[in-house]
Amino acid sequence: MNGLIGLDWGTSGLRAYWLDEAGAIRETRARPWGIRHLPDGGFDTALTEIIAGWPRLPRLACGMVGSRQGWLEVPYMNLPADTTELGSAVRSLRAKDGSDVHIVPGLRNPQGPDVMRGEETQLLGALALRPALAADSTWLLPGTHSKWTRVRDGAVIDFCTVMTGELFALLRQHSMLCAGSGDATVDTDAFARGVIAARDSGNAGAFSRLFSARALMLDGALASDSVPEYLSGLLIGEELRSSLASNRFRHDAPIQLIGDAALCTRYRLAASHFDIDLAEPLADAAAYGLWQIASHIGLVSAGSSTASKETSSC
Amino acid sequence: MNGLIGLDWGTSGLRAYWLDEAGAIRETRARPWGIRHLPDGGFDTALTEIIAGWPRLPRLACGMVGSRQGWLEVPYMNLPADTTELGSAVRSLRAKDGSDVHIVPGLRNPQGPDVMRGEETQLLGALALRPALAADSTWLLPGTHSKWTRVRDGAVIDFCTVMTGELFALLRQHSMLCAGSGDATVDTDAFARGVIAARDSGNAGAFSRLFSARALMLDGALASDSVPEYLSGLLIGEELRSSLASNRFRHDAPIQLIGDAALCTRYRLAASHFDIDLAEPLADAAAYGLWQIASHIGLVSAGSSTASKETSSC
Repeated sequence: MNGLIGLDWGTSGLRAYWLDEAGAIRETRARPWGIRHLPDGGFDTALTEIIAGWPRLPRLACGMVGSRQGWLEVPYMNLPADTTELGSAVRSLRAKDGSDVHIVPGLRNPQGPDVMRGEETQLLGALALRPALAADSTWLLPGTHSKWTRVRDGAVIDFCTVMTGELFALLRQHSMLCAGSGDATVDTDAFARGVIAARDSGNAGAFSRLFSARALMLDGALASDSVPEYLSGLLIGEELRSSLASNRFRHDAPIQLIGDAALCTRYRLAASHFDIDLAEPLADAAAYGLWQIASHIGLVSAGSSTASKETSSC
Repeated sequence: MNGLIGLDWGTSGLRAYWLDEAGAIRETRARPWGIRHLPDGGFDTALTEIIAGWPRLPRLACGMVGSRQGWLEVPYMNLPADTTELGSAVRSLRAKDGSDVHIVPGLRNPQGPDVMRGEETQLLGALALRPALAADSTWLLPGTHSKWTRVRDGAVIDFCTVMTGELFALLRQHSMLCAGSGDATVDTDAFARGVIAARDSGNAGAFSRLFSARALMLDGALASDSVPEYLSGLLIGEELRSSLASNRFRHDAPIQLIGDAALCTRYRLAASHFDIDLAEPLADAAAYGLWQIASHIGLVSAGSSTASKETSSC
């Protein structure tokens, strides 16, 4: 049997894909076993359990599993980087079950500096799904640490990390701004007001407006339970404002989205208040990226019915 | 005996001043009894204990003690506001010891909106110490919630709150950026690098550079224990950058500082990387501001040896 087990292994979660011999997703499993939340037995146990019952296939992983705190540190590669270069830097370890686990490197942007792990693989997968965008495109991967990325000629040539998701979580859980707010209320009006406040903050930026959440609440102009939605809008709006102000990411064509559907909906709503267009998000991009790299380095023979060398060695 | 007991009563602390008949500070006491950290017995007990042994004198308070969560809510006054207007809006309560406590209102800036409580009194005290600045000046009160303030003709005409101190505390305690850093290391070089990164972030702003703290650390270019100093510089630098970019606060003359000496030293160091001059900070401004307001509303008779009406009524 040909095919691949793809692992998208981040800080807070692990997602495993069983890809068939044509690179199509046959099954997906997710566990909360990020590298900081491993089950007893660590990486080996997490892997064994998440792929239980699947056939023995080559295993290729991306994400924080390749970081210093991961299973095997795979050094960052400097930009620009494409599939060939990423494939050439894959490193491998022998798991306790006797088979290898191959790990994709992360990318380093010497301008910044800045780093990513996992998103580079999602980008390659997305480019395989949308080959017309390989020539020149901007990609936004929202999340705990949002990544704004520029692709040209099939390679990642620039990116920037914005800590929007982590900042929102910090403010939501610990700031006095949210001290009086109960459960999160869905309030698209409050969200939109936050976005607009950020957009209109000009070159001063929206972080000088964070306190407006409290002042509006004291004014009776913002319900206490809507403060989190306002802050979400303010932070996502600031991410859009600052990324556009940096002039590093072209937005004369739609910006491509990769990520969680609900979060991408928030970003598309926020973008409607700016003069930019965010495309519908792509799902499971990591799986397709892992397939691309696996094909490139001969872990799998795409389109071939014969088992790859790696598979036969398992 | 003439004189005043002045209370600077904030969220996290209580400071009491015994002012003599000339408005000079005779004794100062500080307790960690902010309105969210009151001793058993609440406001009355805190007051009784902090002024124990002092003579019965009129009591005037400023700060969060006048907020909705305080001892008595004193509504915000809209800008512009001077001593006369603040004095006219003072409200009073009768404490359990039978004497009154008078409380200064906070200020509201309809542009924003924005609010302050306590800083308006510090500003009035500072203007009494530096009367030449009453005509037209910019004031910076760094802290958990920094206040940038414009004074003209003796009145507060504009202000803006920047949550620099609270954001730093959140990042220091809870962010993955500081996950590997131990005790805070004094590292003026790392601090300066953060300030410069913020200054040079241009119109994008420094919040898109927060992640550089981690990337520099991974690069080996920033010691893990120095990340907090870098972040402190980045956030204070961003406060300076954004306040200058807003064009709301003139800085062709020195900007006046009021606040904690160590924190003000940080701000002056940061300002040295911008084209602005921060003056030496003024201390105990709240006490002098309370004296100004008390004199204005007849709680004390400045320069008179006769007890004020209020004192004799105690």
